[in-house]
Amino acid sequence: MKKNSKILLSDDEMPRQWYNIVADMPNKPMPPLHPATKQPVGPEDLAAVFPMELIKQEVSSERYIDIPEEVLDLYTAFRPSPMFRAFNLEKSLGTKSKIYYKYEGGNYSGSHKANTALPQAYYNKMEGIKRITTETGAGQWGSAMSFACHHFGLELLVFMVKVSYNQKPGRKLLMNTYNAKVVASPSTMTVAGRKVLELDPDSPGSLGIAISEAMEVAVQDPYTKYALGSVLNHVILHQTIIGQEALLQMEKAGDYPDVVIGCFGGGSNFSGIAFPFLREKLLHGKNIRLVAVEPASCPKLTKGKFMYDFGDSAGMTPLLPMYTLGHNFMPEKIHAGGLRYHGAGVIVSQLLKDGFIEAKAKMQRECFEAGVLFARTEGILPAPESTYAIAGALDEARKADMEGVSRTILFNLSGHGHFDISAYEKYFENNLPDHELTTAEIDDALSKINIPV
Amino acid sequence: MKKNSKILLSDDEMPRQWYNIVADMPNKPMPPLHPATKQPVGPEDLAAVFPMELIKQEVSSERYIDIPEEVLDLYTAFRPSPMFRAFNLEKSLGTKSKIYYKYEGGNYSGSHKANTALPQAYYNKMEGIKRITTETGAGQWGSAMSFACHHFGLELLVFMVKVSYNQKPGRKLLMNTYNAKVVASPSTMTVAGRKVLELDPDSPGSLGIAISEAMEVAVQDPYTKYALGSVLNHVILHQTIIGQEALLQMEKAGDYPDVVIGCFGGGSNFSGIAFPFLREKLLHGKNIRLVAVEPASCPKLTKGKFMYDFGDSAGMTPLLPMYTLGHNFMPEKIHAGGLRYHGAGVIVSQLLKDGFIEAKAKMQRECFEAGVLFARTEGILPAPESTYAIAGALDEARKADMEGVSRTILFNLSGHGHFDISAYEKYFENNLPDHELTTAEIDDALSKINIPV
Repeated sequence: MKKNSKILLSDDEMPRQWYNIVADMPNKPMPPLHPATKQPVGPEDLAAVFPMELIKQEVSSERYIDIPEEVLDLYTAFRPSPMFRAFNLEKSLGTKSKIYYKYEGGNYSGSHKANTALPQAYYNKMEGIKRITTETGAGQWGSAMSFACHHFGLELLVFMVKVSYNQKPGRKLLMNTYNAKVVASPSTMTVAGRKVLELDPDSPGSLGIAISEAMEVAVQDPYTKYALGSVLNHVILHQTIIGQEALLQMEKAGDYPDVVIGCFGGGSNFSGIAFPFLREKLLHGKNIRLVAVEPASCPKLTKGKFMYDFGDSAGMTPLLPMYTLGHNFMPEKIHAGGLRYHGAGVIVSQLLKDGFIEAKAKMQRECFEAGVLFARTEGILPAPESTYAIAGALDEARKADMEGVSRTILFNLSGHGHFDISAYEKYFENNLPDHELTTAEIDDALSKINIPV
Repeated sequence: MKKNSKILLSDDEMPRQWYNIVADMPNKPMPPLHPATKQPVGPEDLAAVFPMELIKQEVSSERYIDIPEEVLDLYTAFRPSPMFRAFNLEKSLGTKSKIYYKYEGGNYSGSHKANTALPQAYYNKMEGIKRITTETGAGQWGSAMSFACHHFGLELLVFMVKVSYNQKPGRKLLMNTYNAKVVASPSTMTVAGRKVLELDPDSPGSLGIAISEAMEVAVQDPYTKYALGSVLNHVILHQTIIGQEALLQMEKAGDYPDVVIGCFGGGSNFSGIAFPFLREKLLHGKNIRLVAVEPASCPKLTKGKFMYDFGDSAGMTPLLPMYTLGHNFMPEKIHAGGLRYHGAGVIVSQLLKDGFIEAKAKMQRECFEAGVLFARTEGILPAPESTYAIAGALDEARKADMEGVSRTILFNLSGHGHFDISAYEKYFENNLPDHELTTAEIDDALSKINIPV
């Protein structure tokens, strides 16, 4: 054979620990605050919502946290995940740069979300929980959690953002097949949902609203907990297995990335691939850039404000220090449902503020164009979310070519787009709206934030 | 870790040759006949339809045929494919038996069809062909061929069986994304299609009709060839990489199957996994059963007749010695579109006639029930076609338990069902018709065959 595009790790090489970047951050994240008292919340304030092991991880400053044996067993069904050198994509671009991607869509759930769904279900089960509620955007997180809960004998109720519920009926059916109950959000099941519907019966919903609904249901019953698919420290922690593996795979490839790229919704897939590389930068001075790519229609990293805000729309969460467009911001109905979130995770926000990572915003149509090029050259149909990472990688390759240099680019292909194929149809029909938020719209969104801190 | 469900091969262990079972068959397949002269057709009779390298493979009696380097390079992006021990499925059944499955859905196309799409496109390209026509049922073969053709710079026109075209719009869109042109069959583009539509404007189509349409277009231009996704000897040859790998993987697992199971449409995924094991039986006396599972609504193996018949509905192919329900048989509109074919490949037919393999027929609803159990325990959503293999495996496990023994069962999970999710919806709505062909219907179908041999 002439060339092998695939870089694999053996099961023995699979990392046994998650990496907690908090240990290595020069400025630690500011604490979450209780909205009434404005005092830092303690573990006990979160106990109505999450099991204690996850709360411990949420506030931990240990550098490494052991992955439980039972979770390792489940991981090995689909991990270590493959990395590929995108030879065919490089060729079609005519670039001098080398493009690698880590593929997280090969597992049952079709995305990186399985990495945190399995441990979250596991820890809840260990603490005697019977039922979980959660939100989902495009449905990747909901699918991942549906199988994980069924595996551990937990019931699951999913609030799926209404625009995605309508755009992606297959994802809802997949969750049903895994035995989960799925409700379109905003729903009439909750106070939070009914309030939104009163103001706007046609509300397309948002992740912020779905989170409020799921939390509202969870806190009513001691055997029910809530699970979140992104944003929080423990979720990001679980995703670091991606970057831990990627480090080893780059070493096997005899290469090292100049830039690592991920798409950005709440931050978990970006952080998952980026943080282990950022550790090498923080601790060993490795010269590397880490780029988060968000939608121009939901640009909290590039145009939002760093401040305390709620993680959900109804204001049920603690106040979190983050880049935000305001917890009631209603993003455009782009097909990358997983990126339609008003805020960024606390750790990522602090790192962006401190200049350790970069962010850029891209338009939907350009990203789909990149996704189609990727499918035609590399074969895998990317999730709409993942097309933002691809578009980011293409930018880097083109920039390097303009500068006359060759760079090594690594991006996270966070999931496949099999359940999002109708979005590609809209792309081909030239029927994908492109909306970049104007300064006036941003100012308007930010002016609506009303958090007295 | 306690247990690892996954059995992998390294790239170095990937077989470099396909296995041609013709070399080891006690009774060689009877020759295809020219419909007018009733004389055996020679390679030159096929030259208008296929490139010469594939024709050579079609008539070869060499035991092993080298896989070209360029195809090996493409294979390594997704091969060797994983094998899994279905621990969770076994547990939910409470069976004493061990169930293994080989998973062929992890590649870009989502099924085993990539194994033959890539070499077929390659050989056509090598012989200067510019355009390919083909049929597809559920769309797995069409998707596989779409990317393969685009990769080698070939145009592709796909005739997709109309019932699947309507049931599975996502598959059509995936082919479009890979830059292929897709037409619902029967179409008005061809004489064959128009003839069918004249008789029945609402015809749901069949693989036999779609083959006629694709062949009709191909023979009109010297730079256009036709490609078939199953049935023929060269297609089955390419699929033997599945079983060649599976043999090595069973050895790694320290186990050996008592029975190997595949679903059955034209025969390629079944033959692909079964023939290397059958070689061990034929040459080394290994005690092993090989079971093909077909739909009760399209039961050519269990209720068809062994005779010379056309491979397509319009009678454009040579006459093939095979088990058939008649080339104009119109199967029920089951969701396993890939199994809606009137006949069985020539090699499989001879082996069934000679008692070396077994066949059984299953009803659609029971297969979906098995598919849902599989998804909930093993995580992967199976293609409707693959649920027939799962149902066959469950039968074997239950039978062994009734007999008080433990058997080792291996089946081929030929593909994922991401683009077939609406069929699962129908299952949950209790809206899946179940039709077992009656003796009268079979007699009627067979009486319509009118091949003077």
